[in-house]
Amino acid sequence: MNELELVEKIAAMMPSGPAVALGIGDDAAAIDLGGVLLLAAADQVVSGIHFDFNATGAADAGEKLLKRNLSDIAAMGGTARWALVTLAADASDEWILDFHRGLARAAEKYSVAVVGGDLSGCHASGAVGSLTILGTAQPDKLCLRTNAKPGDTVFATGEFGRSYPTGHHLKFEPRLAEAAFLAGDWTRAMMDVSDGPALDARRFAAASNVRFVIDPERLPPRDGATAAERLGDGEDYELIFTVPEEKRAALIAAWPFATRLTAVGEVRPGSGVAGPDGKELEDYGYRHFKKD
Amino acid sequence: MNELELVEKIAAMMPSGPAVALGIGDDAAAIDLGGVLLLAAADQVVSGIHFDFNATGAADAGEKLLKRNLSDIAAMGGTARWALVTLAADASDEWILDFHRGLARAAEKYSVAVVGGDLSGCHASGAVGSLTILGTAQPDKLCLRTNAKPGDTVFATGEFGRSYPTGHHLKFEPRLAEAAFLAGDWTRAMMDVSDGPALDARRFAAASNVRFVIDPERLPPRDGATAAERLGDGEDYELIFTVPEEKRAALIAAWPFATRLTAVGEVRPGSGVAGPDGKELEDYGYRHFKKD
Repeated sequence: MNELELVEKIAAMMPSGPAVALGIGDDAAAIDLGGVLLLAAADQVVSGIHFDFNATGAADAGEKLLKRNLSDIAAMGGTARWALVTLAADASDEWILDFHRGLARAAEKYSVAVVGGDLSGCHASGAVGSLTILGTAQPDKLCLRTNAKPGDTVFATGEFGRSYPTGHHLKFEPRLAEAAFLAGDWTRAMMDVSDGPALDARRFAAASNVRFVIDPERLPPRDGATAAERLGDGEDYELIFTVPEEKRAALIAAWPFATRLTAVGEVRPGSGVAGPDGKELEDYGYRHFKKD
Repeated sequence: MNELELVEKIAAMMPSGPAVALGIGDDAAAIDLGGVLLLAAADQVVSGIHFDFNATGAADAGEKLLKRNLSDIAAMGGTARWALVTLAADASDEWILDFHRGLARAAEKYSVAVVGGDLSGCHASGAVGSLTILGTAQPDKLCLRTNAKPGDTVFATGEFGRSYPTGHHLKFEPRLAEAAFLAGDWTRAMMDVSDGPALDARRFAAASNVRFVIDPERLPPRDGATAAERLGDGEDYELIFTVPEEKRAALIAAWPFATRLTAVGEVRPGSGVAGPDGKELEDYGYRHFKKD
């Protein structure tokens, strides 16, 4: 079974309940607390998978753990507010403290309060960090994977590919300001790209019951990344989102950020993700779990 | 550095923020969302530490992960509502599915909606599960470690010791009903006992700036546990709480549960935890992280 099948089976087992406005399946869940929408998402950093236990600074790993989660809240059009962090580590005291120092510094920078957590040993040399991010969203700004409509233009922020060799996977800036600018006014359909745009666009298209046509040549390269690297390396932590055709030019004109904004494709009726030649884009997407 | 010192250093690093009514240091944090108090806590199960990867059923490990967290919300006087779960596992697909099956069954049983999570590989054979539980509480029922007052009686639910050999650490019932009965009406000072009553009572006393006098002979034994086992084995997932002297007899008379209720000591001015002979109780507490 591959990672996607496993995750689908697991998601199908889980009970939902009252006040769950949006359950498993988007970048974050949304809980309706009577006016306030509470957003919640969880993500991990695991040594040997998301960082190199020997080569990566512990503070960088801790910072990455928070930022991965911030990217999810941003993609929902929400504001990250509170976090809980757990660490299972077989590591030196100094490593453990540094991990949390990096995380705390990033939390301070992005105005996130860390309100709880747990520390445990681990079964083997290395570390597993897990973080739950909580945020709030205005209902009329919530951005969902299910909201892409045929005719929309597909935009992407930033660059793609070669995240590991360039260190981008540790040093990226989550697109909080860009997402806040976009949410509601320009888009209601947005997703964080962390498994490569080929795989993530496929998820986005499936959630909206549409077909995405993405031109790999238009995906801006990081560090000279090839088309295959741009499509499949993953760990970009950029946003993809869709904008109605009539707002496309205005958005490009209004874009106030240094972050690159690129129209990379369009939404059509159908399913899947294809290149401009109509051929399905190969599913390069990075698997955090295993390749089978 | 021992686990407690590490955790203190980490807690001191973490930024707080707006709406944080109660930050790190109790069984759960409380966030004030305007009328509603949102409770949030996170805990882990790690193979080789909280369960035996070869001997424990994966479903039991998943169930334990949820129940550990339910116990924290119960101890706050709140209601557990939503959860996010992450798993880093180097394990078979069947193990991973079973882990989540056990967790989902328990979530169903205790009416908790699982709204998100993440699945990743792990750096070594085994698994690290982490769960964030979210709940709600009425402000006038919130039970805090800081609320014990000199003169109060210290009560405990259930039995203590020998949690591992008896399988109690997997099969326990979190004291949700008992806590709901107690919170507000009988107590505002409660704590979940998972590291043994000696260590946890010390934390409770420190948070309230009082001295606890606990009679080890009054702690009911599980499976014939000795005093040392009752005080220090840990993984009991019982409640300790304090009740004003004038309510003591009425509580004992009103107690509607089969779960045993025992007056195990009293609160005095001062600090620390002592036996009835006035000697400090040795800090047997189970360390999930390391013993030094």
